[in-house]
Amino acid sequence: MSKKLTTRAEDYSKWYNELVVKADLAENSAVRGCMVIKPYGYAIWEKMQAELDRMFKETGHQNAYFPLFVPKSLFEAEEKNAEGFAKECAVVTHYRLQNDPDNEGKLRVDPEAKLEEELVVRPTSEAIIWNTYKGWIQSYRDLPLLINQWANVVRWEMRTRLFLRTAEFLWQEGHTAHETKAEAITEAETMNNVYATFVENFMAIPVIQGLKSESERFAGADETYCIEALMQDGKALQAGTSHFLGQNFAKAFDVKFTNKEGKQDHVWATSWGVSTRLMGALIMTHSDDQGLVLPPNLAPNQVVIVPIYKTDEQLDQITEVVNGIMKDLRAKQITVKFDNRTTHRPGAKFAQHELQGVPLRIAIGARDLENETVELARRDTLTKETVSLDSLIEKVEGLMVEIQDSLFNKALDFRNSHITEVENFDEFKSVLEEKGGFISAHWDGTIETEDKIKEITKATIRCLPLEGEMVDGICVYSGKPSKRRVLFAKAY
Amino acid sequence: MSKKLTTRAEDYSKWYNELVVKADLAENSAVRGCMVIKPYGYAIWEKMQAELDRMFKETGHQNAYFPLFVPKSLFEAEEKNAEGFAKECAVVTHYRLQNDPDNEGKLRVDPEAKLEEELVVRPTSEAIIWNTYKGWIQSYRDLPLLINQWANVVRWEMRTRLFLRTAEFLWQEGHTAHETKAEAITEAETMNNVYATFVENFMAIPVIQGLKSESERFAGADETYCIEALMQDGKALQAGTSHFLGQNFAKAFDVKFTNKEGKQDHVWATSWGVSTRLMGALIMTHSDDQGLVLPPNLAPNQVVIVPIYKTDEQLDQITEVVNGIMKDLRAKQITVKFDNRTTHRPGAKFAQHELQGVPLRIAIGARDLENETVELARRDTLTKETVSLDSLIEKVEGLMVEIQDSLFNKALDFRNSHITEVENFDEFKSVLEEKGGFISAHWDGTIETEDKIKEITKATIRCLPLEGEMVDGICVYSGKPSKRRVLFAKAY
Repeated sequence: MSKKLTTRAEDYSKWYNELVVKADLAENSAVRGCMVIKPYGYAIWEKMQAELDRMFKETGHQNAYFPLFVPKSLFEAEEKNAEGFAKECAVVTHYRLQNDPDNEGKLRVDPEAKLEEELVVRPTSEAIIWNTYKGWIQSYRDLPLLINQWANVVRWEMRTRLFLRTAEFLWQEGHTAHETKAEAITEAETMNNVYATFVENFMAIPVIQGLKSESERFAGADETYCIEALMQDGKALQAGTSHFLGQNFAKAFDVKFTNKEGKQDHVWATSWGVSTRLMGALIMTHSDDQGLVLPPNLAPNQVVIVPIYKTDEQLDQITEVVNGIMKDLRAKQITVKFDNRTTHRPGAKFAQHELQGVPLRIAIGARDLENETVELARRDTLTKETVSLDSLIEKVEGLMVEIQDSLFNKALDFRNSHITEVENFDEFKSVLEEKGGFISAHWDGTIETEDKIKEITKATIRCLPLEGEMVDGICVYSGKPSKRRVLFAKAY
Repeated sequence: MSKKLTTRAEDYSKWYNELVVKADLAENSAVRGCMVIKPYGYAIWEKMQAELDRMFKETGHQNAYFPLFVPKSLFEAEEKNAEGFAKECAVVTHYRLQNDPDNEGKLRVDPEAKLEEELVVRPTSEAIIWNTYKGWIQSYRDLPLLINQWANVVRWEMRTRLFLRTAEFLWQEGHTAHETKAEAITEAETMNNVYATFVENFMAIPVIQGLKSESERFAGADETYCIEALMQDGKALQAGTSHFLGQNFAKAFDVKFTNKEGKQDHVWATSWGVSTRLMGALIMTHSDDQGLVLPPNLAPNQVVIVPIYKTDEQLDQITEVVNGIMKDLRAKQITVKFDNRTTHRPGAKFAQHELQGVPLRIAIGARDLENETVELARRDTLTKETVSLDSLIEKVEGLMVEIQDSLFNKALDFRNSHITEVENFDEFKSVLEEKGGFISAHWDGTIETEDKIKEITKATIRCLPLEGEMVDGICVYSGKPSKRRVLFAKAY
């Protein structure tokens, strides 16, 4: 805990990896590419889950649970989806281990226990869910079907990083069915909006809503909506996606309904998801060289109180005052922890809470008792002030809002100052190299140009922003006509 | 929805299976032995989760998340545990599918993408967790380590039944580490108590706390505590277990700590879990031939209101009254749903809510409006009464408690009247056959006798009850000396 973090300027990537581990958020496991989410990291994820779950229910969705495994024959039913995920999926082939005759005390796969049909560990659940929906949907009365699932999924990524890209991750996946195309598109847009609202208001991360280009779309989708955020190193991060799936899965799994006119039609679908990847976005947006910085809306402990004392008598007196403060803060729905561990000195506690991003720290010593004051330290600005006990609760309550807003605005300023309009490819390359961020450029709309730009610069089209006018121009790469600017960036 | 259920008397097992599906709790999936938990069933599970999670946190536990996969070399490290689960585990052997050259449009496992080491899909997580704890525990200052995980697990059972025994199920698993043997035993007992409190107070199911016999213990445990419930057909159901693991996993994974005296020792462990199996216990304890009966503490909707009207004007008037009732009920923390669907008639709504076990149904018609009354129907007793609007809220509030208590007491009476003390093996067999339930009998303490009794009668030792005196006697089977009575039963 004591060693300092690598600074962002020294090595941003190393800073991130160290921070995740030292702040007790997550660590690598014995399973290639799979992480252990530690209690402190999981507590933040639980706060995200609780708020998202509330928002999903408020928009009419119910939770359910579908199997972890997808039989191969279902997995391959929607061709594009299968093609998109086949290259990176974990496959269960056997259902038993036995003692290894060649290796005493060891086990081996029992060759007799081979499955008739292989099972894919879900990389996403469209296939198993649409196969189920077939039995649930007969008539327009069964629609819309608005379901969400909290689950683990597995994608056998070759290069993994804690939270950002792991072989197993936690997520939620919404899967909805609708009578009409228009209704499904509205649903996909609504949920992309829910994500944007959550990420901006709770995570204090500004996002740009947009559409993916065809080559960046979800495999099996007709249109992918997304929210894109910008990290401190100038790289973009896709924070959530919401897909309009057309009738692709309904056709692959033959899910038809009788409409109000008594005619049969395939239903229209959406799916949408956010994952533990959001933890990565949270960390990289706000944190600094001292460690994690958490927005109050997601901090497991919004306030921590550290007593500074020499005698047991002093601790008793401090504790009495602290009990009053805690009661008053909790009455205001502010979460507070009294760090009265006797195993650590105040300095070590300060360092730990700084590293773990607790928004506000209150320190109380013997002199504070006399003066009826406390020392209040703010994590985001690393500033301290002395506050009278009288005004403490009101002050803390105000700071919860102020810090949340301040983090958002700081991130927004950074993001806005890192959207650069360029007019030609030289400018594109030099801005990307020297400044990073989003590059707003005209594009001719072809996959060939998109691929070429990616090949040369490693930048991809992050989105076709939903906001902003359609303005004619010239593609920065091909010089061909373009109808609009799109956002390019290097991305996580 | 309209067809009647098979009655319990006709075929208890069929009644159960039909009820689970018709009440929209769960259904079988395309994956052998894996279920889909439908939204209504999942909503009940969420209520269970929320309360258990609160109780775990109140007793000092934190949530975390560990990988789905266990590398074979870790899986086999604790021998007894490995032996116990090796016969029924799903094994991932490959990480990619490819186009099948012999079968156009189909996929097959890519033989080039074979894993160096097979991965077992966790049947339980001791192995992966204790391998992780090795890095987390150095000193007594790191203890106790009190962690819980909500997760899916897979056990390749050959004969499966919805909720009761499925290849994949949802559960929570607590995994704790302690300085001393005594502390670990206390933890195992505490958590068994937490389970008993939850199951009795929230699920309204009386349980007997006890210890498992050696042959019924968790694979790798030194002692298994359990809570045993009795279903309406006279069969027992193990509702939760809490294991004292001794130093078995600490030794298998070399997890040592420096104690207060500066000496190295292996830590002491517990693990404990309850699963979606509890849903099966809930259904089989309270439900009747009309369908599900839910205790108010776990009902997603505690009250449903059905309007009975002929004209839109009547519906408007009813809606106005209902809005007032809903506001008042919600102010009392009572969940209420207004079933104003225009697609279904009142009779169909009544049948559905009865089938789905909503504790109270309020019906309001035009005459009720005149009389300022409603019709209040109680699901558990299938009784109705007319209640004046004035006294409705108070009445409903009282009934929430009364129904909860009444369900528990009814189940308790049934359970208590189905514990029979027997003195010899003929009596044992005839009581088991004719009456079922728990049989309290002297046992000589040997595995041989336990096996023989199981072979002859299919009854197993459910537990050595924690309560009750130790009384010398004669084993019902072998005639050898016995120090105490134990409880036998046929079980789910």
